[in-house]
Amino acid sequence: MLSKSRLTFIKSLHTKKNRVYTNLFIVEGLKIVSELISSNYRLETIYCTEQCISVVKDLITLARKNIEIGMVSVAEMEKISLLTNPSEVLAVVTDTKNKPADIAYPAIACDSVQDPGNLGTILRVADWFDFPTVILSPGCVEWQNPKVIQASMGSFLRLAITVRALKPFLRQTQAAVYGAVMDGESIYDLNLTPKSILLLGNEGHGIDSELRECISSRITIPRFGGSDSLNVGVAAGILCYEIRRSLRREVEYPDN
Amino acid sequence: MLSKSRLTFIKSLHTKKNRVYTNLFIVEGLKIVSELISSNYRLETIYCTEQCISVVKDLITLARKNIEIGMVSVAEMEKISLLTNPSEVLAVVTDTKNKPADIAYPAIACDSVQDPGNLGTILRVADWFDFPTVILSPGCVEWQNPKVIQASMGSFLRLAITVRALKPFLRQTQAAVYGAVMDGESIYDLNLTPKSILLLGNEGHGIDSELRECISSRITIPRFGGSDSLNVGVAAGILCYEIRRSLRREVEYPDN
Repeated sequence: MLSKSRLTFIKSLHTKKNRVYTNLFIVEGLKIVSELISSNYRLETIYCTEQCISVVKDLITLARKNIEIGMVSVAEMEKISLLTNPSEVLAVVTDTKNKPADIAYPAIACDSVQDPGNLGTILRVADWFDFPTVILSPGCVEWQNPKVIQASMGSFLRLAITVRALKPFLRQTQAAVYGAVMDGESIYDLNLTPKSILLLGNEGHGIDSELRECISSRITIPRFGGSDSLNVGVAAGILCYEIRRSLRREVEYPDN
Repeated sequence: MLSKSRLTFIKSLHTKKNRVYTNLFIVEGLKIVSELISSNYRLETIYCTEQCISVVKDLITLARKNIEIGMVSVAEMEKISLLTNPSEVLAVVTDTKNKPADIAYPAIACDSVQDPGNLGTILRVADWFDFPTVILSPGCVEWQNPKVIQASMGSFLRLAITVRALKPFLRQTQAAVYGAVMDGESIYDLNLTPKSILLLGNEGHGIDSELRECISSRITIPRFGGSDSLNVGVAAGILCYEIRRSLRREVEYPDN
């Protein structure tokens, strides 16, 4: 059973302020938590209902880790969970990634992406197409937000995610900076370079005008129909798919 | 001011049962409603707050339509709206699309896509890449669901959306049926045909086993990294982008 103070503490991690203050965040669901157990993340405590406790214990033993487990009732899980349908497992995780990471290419940079579902989708896309680094402007929704974690489906585990001011970073980079805009060159007609950063803008306003000078190529997904725009997660998927096509070409025909 | 019975009636359209029974659904937001006014849809009533009433009246006059307008207070709008941040305009629309439509190609068929955000994204993708027809299995979330409407950003207006049993339909079609699966041929290596139907499966279980025999080509987005899967809306975007590339090739080199 959870003490009242412990329950209050876990629930406090539902807000960004307390996540930043404690350097902890919440991850829910057996699948992601089992991946976390065998990862380099430090898990503070794993809360399980009775149904899952033995499998979680086995996973911890298998990974030769020493992680505290707390058994909670279904009613308690409903209180500490952020999901409409709470799962059987909830982990409190120490945020070990919030340090400047070396940039591995191809990378994605997000300028003020606001919607947690969209950022989660972008992380999943980055992971699928093996874009190892994702750089977030300070104006983005935080990647530790539970809705981002949920939408990323565990992809955050395999990526280097870093928050930094984009302008100084993009100004000094040697990599090509591809800015996703509405009126750039069609990606059907471009040969994209592997050492590149794909820059994605805010859902409503696109890429901030201050950052536009840092773009080396303005690239566009051709439109055929009537829609005003594509969802930024979908755009990320198409652009990463196309950048990977050219990486593939470079491997096959290295002299090009 | 809204009468109590009218308020109850509009709120009843928040549920699928009542939408089906009345053949009405709700659309919110000035941008989409202004597109609706000039479309072929029949609008039963438009509810506006004081702030928007004159612009809505002007739009109706401009479109030479005769649509009833109801002025509501901000508090009333909060009651009838489904949005966390209600807009100034809410329309009650007659569902005129629920009839078998002729299939124009390329088309998308969805098998039991469950998440309203995903279906809305698929509609937006279909509209962007000019896939004029979207066919939904009866197991899909209904496209009149307010969250689908919202995520589609008005794209539903420009598409022929039809609900039908997929198996008999796919069995008799002359078009190529591209099934999006995890272990098919890489779309980097395929020349896709324009007269085609892109078949997308359920978020968790993919394409139903009963439908697999109707697939003419099993197609896959190559994976490079660690993620288990891509979001179905993102997959739709990449696949439609690639099908459009081949349509474009056929236009440029008609002899191929």
